[in-house]
Amino acid sequence: MRGVVMHTAGDVRVEDRPDPEILEPTDAVITLAATCVCGSDLWPYRGVEPADHQVMGHEYIGVVEEVGSAVETVAPGDFVVGSFVISDNTCEICRAGFQSKCVHAEFVAQTIGTQAEKARIPHADGTLVKTPGTPGPELYPALLAASDVLGTGWFAAVAAEAGPGRTVAVVGDGAVGLMAVLAARELGAERIIAMSRHPERQRLARHYGATDIVEERGDEGVEKVKELTGGLGAHSVIEAVGTQESFMQAVGITRGGGHLGYVGVNHDVQIPGIELFFAGIHALGGPAPVRRFLPDLLERIWAGEIDPGLVFDLTLPLEDAAEAYRAMDERRATKVMLTL
Amino acid sequence: MRGVVMHTAGDVRVEDRPDPEILEPTDAVITLAATCVCGSDLWPYRGVEPADHQVMGHEYIGVVEEVGSAVETVAPGDFVVGSFVISDNTCEICRAGFQSKCVHAEFVAQTIGTQAEKARIPHADGTLVKTPGTPGPELYPALLAASDVLGTGWFAAVAAEAGPGRTVAVVGDGAVGLMAVLAARELGAERIIAMSRHPERQRLARHYGATDIVEERGDEGVEKVKELTGGLGAHSVIEAVGTQESFMQAVGITRGGGHLGYVGVNHDVQIPGIELFFAGIHALGGPAPVRRFLPDLLERIWAGEIDPGLVFDLTLPLEDAAEAYRAMDERRATKVMLTL
Repeated sequence: MRGVVMHTAGDVRVEDRPDPEILEPTDAVITLAATCVCGSDLWPYRGVEPADHQVMGHEYIGVVEEVGSAVETVAPGDFVVGSFVISDNTCEICRAGFQSKCVHAEFVAQTIGTQAEKARIPHADGTLVKTPGTPGPELYPALLAASDVLGTGWFAAVAAEAGPGRTVAVVGDGAVGLMAVLAARELGAERIIAMSRHPERQRLARHYGATDIVEERGDEGVEKVKELTGGLGAHSVIEAVGTQESFMQAVGITRGGGHLGYVGVNHDVQIPGIELFFAGIHALGGPAPVRRFLPDLLERIWAGEIDPGLVFDLTLPLEDAAEAYRAMDERRATKVMLTL
Repeated sequence: MRGVVMHTAGDVRVEDRPDPEILEPTDAVITLAATCVCGSDLWPYRGVEPADHQVMGHEYIGVVEEVGSAVETVAPGDFVVGSFVISDNTCEICRAGFQSKCVHAEFVAQTIGTQAEKARIPHADGTLVKTPGTPGPELYPALLAASDVLGTGWFAAVAAEAGPGRTVAVVGDGAVGLMAVLAARELGAERIIAMSRHPERQRLARHYGATDIVEERGDEGVEKVKELTGGLGAHSVIEAVGTQESFMQAVGITRGGGHLGYVGVNHDVQIPGIELFFAGIHALGGPAPVRRFLPDLLERIWAGEIDPGLVFDLTLPLEDAAEAYRAMDERRATKVMLTL
């Protein structure tokens, strides 16, 4: 099969890779309908994380081709969406809703690499969710978003306890930040402040439910959000960037006793303990347990209640993956879908 | 009146200080029945925080002597317990239960200094709670503990969501850690692991409800707690020290999706964002909103359900405050009560 390999930072190639096979009775092999490039794929692309002939990709939708003997909930021919973290969905941690910390957790990005024609998915029952029917390609963007960015933004909004009567502030206007805006609106937030200085993303944020846009960053951004919230800060804050500035900005705009949901992958962030301490806030973050939310999210998409697919602003064939990475790296695209 | 002044690190004196007076209509002046030295008082004592003729003390019980014209819930003659943070208990933040982040928050330690015969307490209605009757001196230690260490340990246990079916681990065997053990037991925790290598404190931890003692620290401590919890870590972890090692130890022993309550005042702690991120845990901490818990805690003490007073293992008259600091600094005492 064809699949993406990042030879080294900046060098993305589509190559022949071995076809995946069932190795464990809990495995499934899927034929991908679509995959995409994630903001987090830019970390190795830019040399911030190592990349040495690394398979890439962790978002995926497709059709089950074959299953192991122990797989019960999906069968060949089923259209499925999976989480970017493998989970058994039966262990104590999964049952508590933290499938991304499953005792069998495995990052799809590191070992499987779904920017490819096919993929072996371990723990298929605990990782994949069948769609209510076979979708047409017009639904692919929305379903693919559920695999990570929607699930992650949704988790962030839940972690931040976005809901009725709450003012939510979202730091980060990438795909996850935009999905967090959508999630906050669906969860009933009263007011949603999107922090963005990018006109096109501001427009999309408003489309998804943002009521206010704040262009300022850092200390100025903190001051601005405080002004908008009677000096107190937001009830619910979502951090969807992962830099020192964005993380501390997010801490700074959370009111005392408020909730911070942080899903931007932290790189070289050092949180001063004393600042977090005196902030007096709830914080919950990390790789999102997307599997917890998938069944609900797929139903909402199927019912036409949400359209997360708009975060894809460029679609290319898998063979053009190198251009997809370039477009995102140069910020010519927010998120690129790769078709097969 | 007589009161403690820390001239500089290590130099604690009891001196004549001006008698407090009502300055605002919401003030009360109290005559102290007892006060004490806190673990956090050792930070300036050891030169980790600056001290330049600083008034000291933030824990207090006593009798109301005079109130301002706007005070409604306490009156001269009432016996009261107060929080170590002033709060109005009416603002939006207080109503959400985070009185330590009140819009009128003021640290008693910094400006008032209750290691003294008398104290002016601003926002008396929102800060002080009247005891059900006038206590005898045998209840002073328990009531005084409620003012900070019990309230803080209780908050930590609530923040860590200690409760039925939960395994709770407590990092820190000082007064706050011991009170967190007591709180976890009262909240119904199934198993309570106290991390301590001090025989006397281990004994007290067991008295307060610890079911397991772990003497190992750092990575070894993390491994030991994991061993005790089926490899998963504790559901609920309380950090009651405030050093880099203790904080990261606490993060390390919290299971994915578990809850960390951190109340050790962080000094020079730098939390690696990436470690907190991949831990995937809930965290809530900071100065405890003791006022939230005071009414309930006073009732439990009055009913004889809890006896937090045992954390005081040395009692000295206020005039011997310097010796009280020395005894705690040299770890000859866990916590010293000062009588008047």
